[in-house]
Amino acid sequence: MDSEAQESPLLQWKPDDYGGVKVNLTEPMTTEDFVPKPVPGKKGIWIKLADGLENLIAPAKAEGFKYHHAESDYLMLVSWLSDLHNTIPANASHRIGIAAFVLNRVWKLPTGVIKEGEGVWAGAEREVAEETGIKTTFKEVLAFRESHKSFSEKRKTDIMFLCELIMKPGTFEIKKEKTEIYAAKWMPIEEYVNQPWNQEKELFRFMANICLKISHEIEYVGFSTVRTTTSTGRESYLYCNTDHANLLNATRGPASTSTPTSR
Amino acid sequence: MDSEAQESPLLQWKPDDYGGVKVNLTEPMTTEDFVPKPVPGKKGIWIKLADGLENLIAPAKAEGFKYHHAESDYLMLVSWLSDLHNTIPANASHRIGIAAFVLNRVWKLPTGVIKEGEGVWAGAEREVAEETGIKTTFKEVLAFRESHKSFSEKRKTDIMFLCELIMKPGTFEIKKEKTEIYAAKWMPIEEYVNQPWNQEKELFRFMANICLKISHEIEYVGFSTVRTTTSTGRESYLYCNTDHANLLNATRGPASTSTPTSR
Repeated sequence: MDSEAQESPLLQWKPDDYGGVKVNLTEPMTTEDFVPKPVPGKKGIWIKLADGLENLIAPAKAEGFKYHHAESDYLMLVSWLSDLHNTIPANASHRIGIAAFVLNRVWKLPTGVIKEGEGVWAGAEREVAEETGIKTTFKEVLAFRESHKSFSEKRKTDIMFLCELIMKPGTFEIKKEKTEIYAAKWMPIEEYVNQPWNQEKELFRFMANICLKISHEIEYVGFSTVRTTTSTGRESYLYCNTDHANLLNATRGPASTSTPTSR
Repeated sequence: MDSEAQESPLLQWKPDDYGGVKVNLTEPMTTEDFVPKPVPGKKGIWIKLADGLENLIAPAKAEGFKYHHAESDYLMLVSWLSDLHNTIPANASHRIGIAAFVLNRVWKLPTGVIKEGEGVWAGAEREVAEETGIKTTFKEVLAFRESHKSFSEKRKTDIMFLCELIMKPGTFEIKKEKTEIYAAKWMPIEEYVNQPWNQEKELFRFMANICLKISHEIEYVGFSTVRTTTSTGRESYLYCNTDHANLLNATRGPASTSTPTSR
């Protein structure tokens, strides 16, 4: 097996978390300097190519690399030993959306897509603020729907969380702030439930009826947040049965007591 | 504005769902034939490049195209009018995992990543079967945790659903079927909860304690599935409060009554 890859000063492999190695290329390089060969004893190789390094894509693919994913500013290629194929870390596979139910005797239902790195609870609060100017606090996830073959060449799944939010003290007046909003207004829950699209589509009718239950204070328990951290200190949230979450949040010491609603 | 793009027989744009146009290139093409210019009156252009068309990537980027996403067999590029940038459909942003709690007096907790196009409930059943050989039926989502900056260059969010599953009649014996499994065994719930990793990590302790509640039949309501379809007939599931889901599933006519557990 060729060991040039390890010797080349231009390809500085670093171990990844999955038994492979990784190289992050950002500076222009000729195809002659680029030697994407297997690294002995490693399960696989990742190559991250920054903008401007398109000349290296074809040579990498000729050596057996495949696309793994891309973002606007880079392309990630991977070469993996075929018998270990199923241990390649998965690419992002889902898009997460929210539909926000704001309880204030009357209500509306803005929707939107969670941004990269954003929590469901935070995305729901942001979308309501952006679309209406109303400040809210996330209360709970009431339900979610999973819709298959939904986007990205009809391969990926869209999950939409139906969230209940509580209005913060302040203005009740809706400001139409985004260009794509056709109309936004408060309406009595019964009027909303009876809109044609809610009656014709079973899924919308199901969601509207859950909101109706909530607004009539009929028992319905969703999932609320408990804030925690991962072992490496990253921000993390547990969403669990609201009665249970309230118990957990109430019994924790002040140091770790931090829920979205207490920010 | 140059109208060559529309005239070229090799670039056959088709409207997308977002006010843009799209071209799907699969056959080899020289860079001279490739004219990725703006299309008048359209908000944006998508170019999908199959394997083997790497020669067209640099010319497209020189015309202002950026990577949108990639899968192993294609690369998607997009050029969007900048003042409408925020209406570009989002790329996949999340990876969805499951942790499966199998109730059978004693239990275990296999984990795994949901495959592209697979439901949370189906992924949980599959992972348990793959990792242990035990056949189960999804019962409910007990909770989920949202972990930010988790993968893909620490930009994306990992959501893991903690699921409760019921053993199907049949073998009780665990078969270790996948290479990556170090050990799999049934153990009393109390023994599992007291494992060091569950006590040291707050999040794991929270999840273990929910399982403990369930196994002791202490009231804890999660989210169960109601099967429905989208307006275009695609498979879709609503996950909502289990008491509510049972009510919905029981009151629907036979034609639409179809839950994962009734397959």
